[in-house]
Order: sequence, then C-alpha cells, then structure tokens
Amino acid sequence: MIKTAVLGATGYTGVELVRLLHAHPAVEPVFLSSGSTAGKKYSEVHPQFAGRVDLTLEQMDYEKIPESVEMVFCALPHGKSAEIAAEIYKKGFKVIDLSADYRLGDPELYREWYNLEHPVAEMLGKAVYGLPELNKELIKGARFIANPGCYPTSILLALAPLLGEKIIKSSSIIIDAKSGVSGAGRAPKQPFHFPDCTENFKAYRVANHQHTAEIEQELGRLAGENIKITFTPHLVPMIRGILSTVYAEPISMTSEIELGELYDAFYSDCPFVRILKSPALPETRMVRGTNMCDIAVKYDSRTNRIIIISVIDNLLKGASGQAVQNMNLMLGLPEEEGLGYIAL
Amino acid sequence: MIKTAVLGATGYTGVELVRLLHAHPAVEPVFLSSGSTAGKKYSEVHPQFAGRVDLTLEQMDYEKIPESVEMVFCALPHGKSAEIAAEIYKKGFKVIDLSADYRLGDPELYREWYNLEHPVAEMLGKAVYGLPELNKELIKGARFIANPGCYPTSILLALAPLLGEKIIKSSSIIIDAKSGVSGAGRAPKQPFHFPDCTENFKAYRVANHQHTAEIEQELGRLAGENIKITFTPHLVPMIRGILSTVYAEPISMTSEIELGELYDAFYSDCPFVRILKSPALPETRMVRGTNMCDIAVKYDSRTNRIIIISVIDNLLKGASGQAVQNMNLMLGLPEEEGLGYIAL
Amino acid sequence: MIKTAVLGATGYTGVELVRLLHAHPAVEPVFLSSGSTAGKKYSEVHPQFAGRVDLTLEQMDYEKIPESVEMVFCALPHGKSAEIAAEIYKKGFKVIDLSADYRLGDPELYREWYNLEHPVAEMLGKAVYGLPELNKELIKGARFIANPGCYPTSILLALAPLLGEKIIKSSSIIIDAKSGVSGAGRAPKQPFHFPDCTENFKAYRVANHQHTAEIEQELGRLAGENIKITFTPHLVPMIRGILSTVYAEPISMTSEIELGELYDAFYSDCPFVRILKSPALPETRMVRGTNMCDIAVKYDSRTNRIIIISVIDNLLKGASGQAVQNMNLMLGLPEEEGLGYIAL
Amino acid sequence: MIKTAVLGATGYTGVELVRLLHAHPAVEPVFLSSGSTAGKKYSEVHPQFAGRVDLTLEQMDYEKIPESVEMVFCALPHGKSAEIAAEIYKKGFKVIDLSADYRLGDPELYREWYNLEHPVAEMLGKAVYGLPELNKELIKGARFIANPGCYPTSILLALAPLLGEKIIKSSSIIIDAKSGVSGAGRAPKQPFHFPDCTENFKAYRVANHQHTAEIEQELGRLAGENIKITFTPHLVPMIRGILSTVYAEPISMTSEIELGELYDAFYSDCPFVRILKSPALPETRMVRGTNMCDIAVKYDSRTNRIIIISVIDNLLKGASGQAVQNMNLMLGLPEEEGLGYIAL
Repeated sequence: MIKTAVLGATGYTGVELVRLLHAHPAVEPVFLSSGSTAGKKYSEVHPQFAGRVDLTLEQMDYEKIPESVEMVFCALPHGKSAEIAAEIYKKGFKVIDLSADYRLGDPELYREWYNLEHPVAEMLGKAVYGLPELNKELIKGARFIANPGCYPTSILLALAPLLGEKIIKSSSIIIDAKSGVSGAGRAPKQPFHFPDCTENFKAYRVANHQHTAEIEQELGRLAGENIKITFTPHLVPMIRGILSTVYAEPISMTSEIELGELYDAFYSDCPFVRILKSPALPETRMVRGTNMCDIAVKYDSRTNRIIIISVIDNLLKGASGQAVQNMNLMLGLPEEEGLGYIAL
Repeated sequence: MIKTAVLGATGYTGVELVRLLHAHPAVEPVFLSSGSTAGKKYSEVHPQFAGRVDLTLEQMDYEKIPESVEMVFCALPHGKSAEIAAEIYKKGFKVIDLSADYRLGDPELYREWYNLEHPVAEMLGKAVYGLPELNKELIKGARFIANPGCYPTSILLALAPLLGEKIIKSSSIIIDAKSGVSGAGRAPKQPFHFPDCTENFKAYRVANHQHTAEIEQELGRLAGENIKITFTPHLVPMIRGILSTVYAEPISMTSEIELGELYDAFYSDCPFVRILKSPALPETRMVRGTNMCDIAVKYDSRTNRIIIISVIDNLLKGASGQAVQNMNLMLGLPEEEGLGYIAL
Repeated sequence: MIKTAVLGATGYTGVELVRLLHAHPAVEPVFLSSGSTAGKKYSEVHPQFAGRVDLTLEQMDYEKIPESVEMVFCALPHGKSAEIAAEIYKKGFKVIDLSADYRLGDPELYREWYNLEHPVAEMLGKAVYGLPELNKELIKGARFIANPGCYPTSILLALAPLLGEKIIKSSSIIIDAKSGVSGAGRAPKQPFHFPDCTENFKAYRVANHQHTAEIEQELGRLAGENIKITFTPHLVPMIRGILSTVYAEPISMTSEIELGELYDAFYSDCPFVRILKSPALPETRMVRGTNMCDIAVKYDSRTNRIIIISVIDNLLKGASGQAVQNMNLMLGLPEEEGLGYIAL
Repeated sequence: MIKTAVLGATGYTGVELVRLLHAHPAVEPVFLSSGSTAGKKYSEVHPQFAGRVDLTLEQMDYEKIPESVEMVFCALPHGKSAEIAAEIYKKGFKVIDLSADYRLGDPELYREWYNLEHPVAEMLGKAVYGLPELNKELIKGARFIANPGCYPTSILLALAPLLGEKIIKSSSIIIDAKSGVSGAGRAPKQPFHFPDCTENFKAYRVANHQHTAEIEQELGRLAGENIKITFTPHLVPMIRGILSTVYAEPISMTSEIELGELYDAFYSDCPFVRILKSPALPETRMVRGTNMCDIAVKYDSRTNRIIIISVIDNLLKGASGQAVQNMNLMLGLPEEEGLGYIAL
C-alpha cells in the first residue's frame, strides 16, 4: 500500500480525503495532522471512523511526516498553506495543495483577490493546475499540484469546449453558480447556523468572489486571450453540491445537436464527465458523494444564447475527489481507482 | 365586514388567501369552494384553521356564490380558471384571477406557451395586469384583475426602473431565477417527493418556461418595444421564496450609487418594495410570510454589467398577498391593510 | 398604546417578542436592549424589521427604561437574568422573565441543575409560574412572572389533566421530547452548523436535561406529591416546533373516549389548547408561528399505557407567545389579543 | 463474479441493493426487474447509474431469471412478494426477501397486522429471520431469508443483550422510534410532499404500527416468553436514518458500567455494531450510507430506568445493507465484504 499524509485532516475536505484514501485499494493514510485537535485519535473527532481510522492526530509539523510517505495532501486554510506546502515540496515530497495558495500564477492577482501578500511567490510557477480533464499530461509528470477550487472546477468544465474552438464571444460569459453549505467550511458562523441557513436562499459576494481570478486565468489560458467574467455565487440550503448555470453568446448561430457533439468529443476520454442528452438536466443529487461532473448544453434560439449547466459534488470533484484523481495520475495508478462511487 | 369568496381554497395559494382574508380587519371569507373536498369543513382539510375557519367547502358552482360577496378570488389551476372567472365577472362580481389565464393579452401567445386554446379569448382584453407597483391607478378602477405570476412579479419589480428610462440594452437581459418548492403546487409528484427533493438543486424548463411570455409582454410594455429574454428557473429545497438574479448591460457606464437613486425614486410610493443599501443583499427568509419585495442593485464595473437581485415570498407577493393588495386597491381600502406581517 | 420594553431583544425569543408586540393592537415596544449590538438600529441587526421597528438598541441598563413602560420582558440568558429582573421588579415595573432563573422555587434545585448559585435567592418566592392554562388567576394578579420553558410547557399541558385526578401511577411517567433547532438559541455552535445539523437526528442530555427539575416541580404541585420523571430530549432538523410523546400507566384500565372527555373538560376555557379527535395526530407545522398547543391522547389497550402527544411552537407557546399571553392577563387585556395567528 | 438478481430494482431499497451489489468485489447484478418501467435501461430510470449499470429492466417474470444466478433479492412491496419469493425458492434459487411477507411465523399475526390473508402460509416456516447478530449460524445454512424490517433491526439490536439475561421486566418496554422519510418508500404521497414534510415532525400509527408484531415475535424468542411492547414511530424531515429510544425497567438496580460491559460482550463478534462510550451518543449521520448500528446504553438512576439509543441507516442496515450481509454469510463470503463504507 502506498503511504499518504493529510495535513488539516479534520475539516470537511480533510475528512473526505481520509475517507477516500482509506477506501482506496492502492493507498492508505498513515499521517494525519490537525492544529486544533492534535493528540486526539482521529475517530474521537469524527466518530464515523471508529474502528477504521484510529490514527492519532499529529501537530502540523512537517518534520514528522515519515519519509516513506509518497504523497502529501495539504487541506489547510488559504494563506496557511503557502509556506507549509512549499517546505514539504522542498523536502522532496509529492504535494497536492487543496488550498487556493498556488492556483494563481500571478502574485498580484493573489494580493488583489485574497488581500494577502503571497509569502513564497517564487514557488507560484512550480505548481500545475490540477484539473485532469484539461491538464492530464502535465499532472502525470508533476510533483506539485494546485488542486482547483470547487466553483472553478464546475465552471471550467462547463466552458472549456467552447473556448479553444472560439465558439463564443469571450466578453459574453455570465456565471450564476449555486453551492451547498459545506463549501463554506466546518467552522460555525452565523450565516450557516441551522435556523438562519435552512429555508433560505441568497446570493453573496456578488461580482467580487475570490474564485473569479482563478476562473478568468484558466479560461484565458484556454482561449489564448484575456477574459473577464461576471460571476455570482449563491448559497443553497443543502450540504453538498454545486450547480453552475453559465450563459454565453455564440459568435454565429448554432444548435443543441452541434453543441452536444462538440462536448461529447471534447470529453470522450474523461471518465468523470457525463454529457447529458436532452431532455435530461443535471441535478446535484445525481453526483452527490461521487467524483462525477454532469453537464447539459442548451441553446436558446429565441435569444441566441448558449446555456450550460454543470453539477459536481463540491467536496469530491470540487476538492478531495479531484485530489485523489490527481494522485492517481501522479502515481501512475488508474485514473478512476478508488473513485467509482455511485450517488447515494 | 366585506364578504369575499375563494374558489379553489385548498391549494397552497388558496390556503394563503383564506389565512390572509381571515386575519384582514376589513374583510372576511364567507364562501370557499374546492373540487376534490367539497362537503368537508375547511378545517378538516387544513387543521391549522380549526376554530378559526370552519366553513363547509362548496362545489365549484358559481351560481351559489352569495350576492353579498364583493370580491371573488379564483385560485384555480391554469386552463380551469378561464371560463369560470369569465362567468363570475359577467354576473357582476369583482374578480381577481390568480391563474395565468388572463395575464397574456394575445391568445396566440397563450396557445404557444400553455399548449391550450383559450376558451374565452374575447375576455382577454378586459383584465388589468395586477402588479400594483406599475399599474396602481388601473387596478383601483378595475373589476377584473389578472394577478401576476410569482416569477414575473420578482423579475418585473427588479427590472422596471431600468426599462422606462432606457438605461439598458433591451436585448441583454438574462434572468436566473430560483424558487422554493411550494411554487409547484400541492399535488404530490415524484420530483417533489421529500427524499428526491431535499438535498438537491436543479434547473428545469430551461429557456422554455411558460412565464417567459408574461415577463416579455410586461417588459415590452414598459420599454415600448419588443423584448426577448433568456429565463432559467431553478428549484431550491425550501418551502417558500423566489430569488431572481437579473443581468443586463447598461447602454453607458453607470454606478451603484446612480442606480440606487433611480430605484429609490421609482419605488418611493411603494410600501412593499425595499431597496437595500450596500453591502446588504436580499435573502428569501427576510420576506418569508410577508408581502415585501427586497431588491439590491449591483454594478460589476469590471464587465460593465448591472446585476439586480430580488426576493419575494412566492405565495404572498408572488400570489395571494399580491391578490389581497389588489383587493385593497379595488375596494378603496388602505393598500397595506391586512398585509403588515414581519418575516417569521 | 401601552408601552413595553424588551431586554435581550436580538436573540430568537427577543425577536419573536418584538415581532408580536409590534403587531399587537394594544401595545408597542418602545425600549429594546442588547448587550452585543447596542447603538445599532434594530432593523440593522434584523433587516426584516426595516421600516417597522427602527428603534436604536440600548445598553442593558435598566436605569434607562422609561417610567412610562408598563411591562418589561427579560429575554436574557439564564444566569444573567436573575439580578436584572430583580432590580427591575424592585423599581416597580411589571416583569416577565423568559429565562429559567425564577422558575424553580428551591435554590438547591437551581444549583443542582444549572450549576450556579442563585444570586438573589430571596426573590424566588415572588414569581408566579406563568403557565396560563394552570395558573390564570395568579397570573392576573401578578407583578412578576417566571415564563415557563419550552419543553415544560409542552409536557405540562400534556400531563396536567391526568395528575389532579390521580388517573396515572405517578412513578410511571416517561417523556420522549423532540425540539427544532431554534430551541438552542442564536449563537452559532458546531452541532448546529448547517452541514452537521441537517439530515441528522440525535438525542442529547439523556436523563440530565435541566428542564427536568422544572417539569417535576410543576407536576408535583399538580399531583400533591413528589414526582420523578424520565426525560429524553432530541434534536430535529427543523427550525421550530416541539413534539413531546409522553407515556404513563393508568391506575385502572381506561379508554380513549374517557380520556378525550377528561381533556376536553380540563381545557374547555383554554383558547390556545386544541384536543384532537382520533384519528388526527399533532404535527408541529400545524402550530408553527402560532401560540397553539395541539394534543392527542391515545390509549394502548394491549399494554395498558396512555400515550399523550403534544406540539407547540417552541418560540411562541414555548416562549414569546406565552409571554404575550401572560402580559395580556396581567394588563387586563383579552387573553387572545395579538395572538390570533394561523400556521403559515 | 457471482451472479445476482434484484426483483423490484427501482424502489429505494432496490436502488440501494443495486448500488451495493455493483460495488461489491465478489458479486454483480445481472438481472433487474421492475413492474412499472420494464423495457427501459436501469440508468434511464436512475441516471446516477449511467455508465455503470445499464442493464435493461425486465418484467417481474421469474421464469426469465438466468439459472446462473446464485442469489435472488426480492425488493417487492409487502403482499406482492409472498408468492413470487415462494416460486423462486421452489425453483431452487437462494432467496432473500426484503418484504415483510416471511418475517412473521404465524399467519394469524400476518392477517391481524397486515390486513391480508397470507397466500402461501405453508412457506412461513421455511424462512430464517435474517438478523445476523442474532442468527448468524442459521443464516449461513439457509436458502431462504426473511430480511428484517428497519424499525425491528434498530430495536432488536438495542434490546437483545437485556433479554436473554433477564435483566429487565419484560412488560416494561417502551419504544419511541424516529425514521427518515425514505422509510415510506418512493411513491409520492401528500404527507411526503416536500412542502408538507420538511420543517415538520409528527408521530404516526401510534400503538398500531405493523412492525410491532415482528418486534414482539423476536423479543419473545430471545426472552423465552410472550412480550408485549408499546411502540410509537415518528417521521423526521431527513432522507435516511432511524433512531430508536428504548425504555425498560431493570429487575434490580444496575449501572451504566455494568450495562456497557454486557453490550460489549454480547456484540464482541459483530463487525457492524458499535457500543459507544459515555458521553458519546448516537447520531444518524454517523451511520448514514453505512451498514453500522451505533448503540448507547444509559441508566437513569433517579428513576431506575434503562435507556438504550440505537441508530441505523434504514436503507442499509435496515434493509439492503443487511440483505448483502446475509448474502455474504449464505455464500461463504467474508461478512463485511462490500459493506465497508464510512459515513459520508
């Protein structure tokens, strides 16, 4: 069994990682760290692991990571991860960083959108953006992965086929995205307190969400030009799932059939992307607990607009499942190994 | 006390109407009908009314409506309402029709979007579109009101200030709307079965929802030109509430301050519309159980797009509350009477 | 309009009180205090009150309560209320204390169940236990009310008819109660964080919940003997509502008809208690947002056990609605005034 | 791979079975039937299986089950299963019947509690009650299993250690159980319509639920005497999970430590039962999507009552997971194979 470590193992993405790694037939977690609960058994903090993962949680001290570990996952908060991930990388480990700290190539953008000075800006160029459907070969050869954000994953997969082919006007992209509450993390806060959060729907960070930069960077890379988007995230009273509704104007008239063929071809080698056939439409429950991304492409001929709808589980394909997919590629394992779940 | 009748009193909008009319200081419900449960006491069908509204439900026979009734509400399904509402109107009653049957002025549009031949097309011109914030004077003098749909109410209130003033490009409107499940009515169906519906989010009727025609008709009337929109409705796992996120491109650069002043002025006489000040954003729970519409107007200067977010309670301002507001205007009562609820 | 004050106006029970008092035809809130948000407008903290209750929140300084105020509600946390309520009472105000601080007559019990020394134990005897269905005449003449807890209200109303009449074995009472999450208050904590709380059900404080003492004290008063109960509270993933399932063994065989008649008679003068007729069973949604308590009495002849099921809205009949009911009685207003809501 | 068949593959328990069998390393589903959707591909009816289980659904015709199938699961409605399961058994297949049709040994009881004449009463004695924690050896040798009900599983596991040892008074058992909505099946009905079901809590079938007979039969078998229980089921607004709170009176005083040791010993060889250590208490989310049963045993020394709390996932340990566990035992596979899931 290949040995792995998870730093920040008690947050939602950490828990998902540990669960996936424990069930994975080729790897096992052997080192788990947590700042706040170090010294406790993992199953004391998360009782669903009792009898399965009873490792004692370590301090976030990367000196203690055993040399036999072949893959280190950093599931730490943004800002906290940058230095730690860099140090671990320098010690020679393979690293997958689930934070946002290495997703943006430009430290200016990081400062602008995260209100932080990047502490190890010289490392920014070392990381491969770990979206396997776009960067599979780079990931296979990488030793340092910036694991994509949940919103960016759902949006980039929705738009990628349109951009390389110059199907759409690049200034026309509007993204209306909706996320379950686990996307906000495990720390209790007023807006996520059950009575304030259930039976409620709202937008937040309208036109200024920090994922905007990451989406624009990767769309720009695909299109070969600067791209600006309008991005509005919303909060859905459910635990898991992101649905992104993406609007774009085609350069010339098109049809759902043409678009469907384009998407089918683009994702023909991608085991985790399903292009739905009309009249089927994506629902978040169809990917809950899985690493799948379901996509439907619609064309509104009345207004000449393309509407793409994509769904993922924000904690799986939007975070920990994608990290395991990246790990599989980096370690030469089958891409789907340990990720064959069907929605509950 | 002014006497009122509710036809179709046991569906969700009917129940809301009866609740509001019962609590209204100037009116009372005296005649309630129901196709499926006629003969039962109202409080047998809806036990929360026990000791409050114990009227026996009547057959949907408009001959039986007492002459002393001054206002008849038709809360019947689309298609079923057209003939009944027309007959009641012809007998001399004041009528507020909560169905879609009299909202569209053009029978062609009705056929196209509802897949039905309108059975009394000659009556279409008689009804006033009952959105008080736009048509208050017409409503005051009307005897027949087509009560607006839930989505159209939230969307027209979001866009109205921009259209008369020619602030936006009329071809640029995209509407991404999200509704609670009560909008689908009270009849149990698979997609609304609790285990299939909770913890799920999805789009439906993408680019072909029947409310599109109603929205376009009223936007066109405001703008004085033909308007086509892209409209995508979504289903939120909550009982009540609609949030509409509306995107439009201004003809020239603008600012949030300018836009805020425009909206404040436009709605200065409208007791049920609140324009939120930045950084406040609408949440459906803030209008739950009320007749309010909360609106925020944002400007994304990076992409030169206006983003308007509006929330209503789909059963109140989106249906029965608006019907009571219309009734108040038609009967010369204070517009807010019986509608002063604060969100629970 | 009679002037009222609410201390601790921003927690869930405070908000409900302000909402009820604002809508009440005979009274109005004129003084609102809050420790954490003093200086802000009430509608800034709770935007649903915008345009309705825009009072500025005061410090919790009872010197500032205007003399014209005729009723002071203390909606402060347990422990914090004791001294403040006592001081206000001493200044001559009428006081309704919604905390637990004056519910127990015996300071020993308070120490045992709340782990606190009561700071003004000499005041314990001054307060009337404000359950109007049992103590109406005392409440009418009282100047200081200890407003009952939410669980105790639902349980005492379920059991009261059986105890005075010696229908049941006093040692046989088992109470299995279930509460919505708002019962835990407004402060965000891990167990009430949406993703940890929704789609989950659990028991808590099994056999050691602090309301046990209050329930036993009042049951003992009714029975004229010491009573000990087994009490297990559970958490339901919903905002509001308590359902209590109460088991007791009758001294001799009985029947549902006999029991129904007993309950009907016992509550014949109680406008907020409804005894349901078989086969109807209580549901929390039927009392949501109302001051009602619905009760069904069942008899399991196979095992000779009585099963009583009661439901209330924990924030209304379980807290703020009951406080308003007590206020009405103390001020000589009609008992039901301002409390005629029908479930949403 | 061992071949299996699922009759009634599109209801909730059928879907869970197909999901578990597909992911099981030693077996595969090769024959799926459905009355209502025969002829369609499985993944058309349940899109989450697209690309995984694309078998065409067959008519419920047991003649068509391939001879190579080694295990047939009947996930049909009660009443419908009796004859079909019997015929399949007679053809020589191993059968696990998930319906209630073979759980009761006495056809009189079946008539009384299910209001049906059992059509093949002579078969009742052939079936082994498939609760592996109690009947493991019998199951290993069986060819026909009556898979237990969801409530009975949670309750029998909670009580079994107390009954053989005569720890409790057999007449003192009260069971207050709470189930998620999937327990009611997949057919849409008014009480499970999302807006009527969410934000609501209620009891149902008080003292007359059909699982009572099954629970009493198995408790009686354990105790060696007739046992009558009081059983009150409740509906929780969540998809999955059952929590049973069980009350019983010990014959002599006891302690939590003694009780904990008893339970630890009783379940020492049971991989799917976890006895929690105080102060931990079971939560349904800790077993969601798993075959685990978590149990806490509490003792209320104030009233001399034992309180046992157990949780299961009603669709896994309460139905399909238990069926797979039974299959593993019958086929000589490791008991835990294909059931190692950790809660999502």
